[in-house]
Amino acid sequence: MLTQQQLSDARARARGYLERAGIVLTPDESEHIEVADFGLGELETTGLELVVYINTERVCAKELVLFPRQTCPQHRHPPIGDDPGKEETFRCRWGIVYLYVQGEAANNPAARVPVGREHTYTVWHEVVLLPGQQYTIPPDTWHWFQAGDEGAIVSEFSTRSRDEFDIFTDPDIRRATIVQ
Amino acid sequence: MLTQQQLSDARARARGYLERAGIVLTPDESEHIEVADFGLGELETTGLELVVYINTERVCAKELVLFPRQTCPQHRHPPIGDDPGKEETFRCRWGIVYLYVQGEAANNPAARVPVGREHTYTVWHEVVLLPGQQYTIPPDTWHWFQAGDEGAIVSEFSTRSRDEFDIFTDPDIRRATIVQ
Repeated sequence: MLTQQQLSDARARARGYLERAGIVLTPDESEHIEVADFGLGELETTGLELVVYINTERVCAKELVLFPRQTCPQHRHPPIGDDPGKEETFRCRWGIVYLYVQGEAANNPAARVPVGREHTYTVWHEVVLLPGQQYTIPPDTWHWFQAGDEGAIVSEFSTRSRDEFDIFTDPDIRRATIVQ
Repeated sequence: MLTQQQLSDARARARGYLERAGIVLTPDESEHIEVADFGLGELETTGLELVVYINTERVCAKELVLFPRQTCPQHRHPPIGDDPGKEETFRCRWGIVYLYVQGEAANNPAARVPVGREHTYTVWHEVVLLPGQQYTIPPDTWHWFQAGDEGAIVSEFSTRSRDEFDIFTDPDIRRATIVQ
């Protein structure tokens, strides 16, 4: 749950990151930046700010803003009917992103797991993305990511987003943010 | 046909536009910027510079650079087998883009058609895109676009690109650029 003030503050902060990176939004996009706290009420630690540019039946493109050390928690995009699940490419535009996917675990990972949520992070194959670097995540693959100390901006290019079908490792997570 | 020098010059110029807009490329992307002259040998007038970030079976994302008044000539993306044809969203990142699609013709269009090629431009519904503005083109729809006086950068979010199947109105056009 977010308060109106927290929502407003997070949007203003996300705008600052996007402006710094030279990414221009329409007034409507700027006003409606999505702020996701994943139901945990710990936005600084577990959260994500999003601008969805387009989400058709076939294609989706978003800008993701992560505050310093903010984490998008572990999840996957399962098959739905004829759809094999969302395929997504993350391209770092600004800052550093530590991305974790299924595969051989890093010995000394750079991310710091949100305290008290350690048991909900189980994939540790590390991909470090600097500006201009990108990585494509196949459908139905566990992944999570965290920004470095300065925060990050990530462009996401994908098939259709159906957030409501995302599966999170953490049973306490709710994808839809409640604002009160 | 382009000479090696023209290719090299166009790449350097495109890099300048991308840098100015704050768009970071990897060294490999920067070195291999695609320069398309559409076989007409009039790159300044009819041409396009491209960075393809990703092109999977399902999703494609590119950065397009247009020099001042440079035109991407009229074409469409037809159905291929089970694929209804490429769907693309153009999002202006920098500069101005005059985009033309099927529909009611503009009385006083802002673009200037490449001289001698007027007969190959037949759709005149005008969409002006400033930074942050975007437009989605359905599959198999005739379209063409031109940058304003300062040039432009456009992000393209689409389904898979199969350039070799594109259909151009101008029979003189060849999508594959020959460099000699």
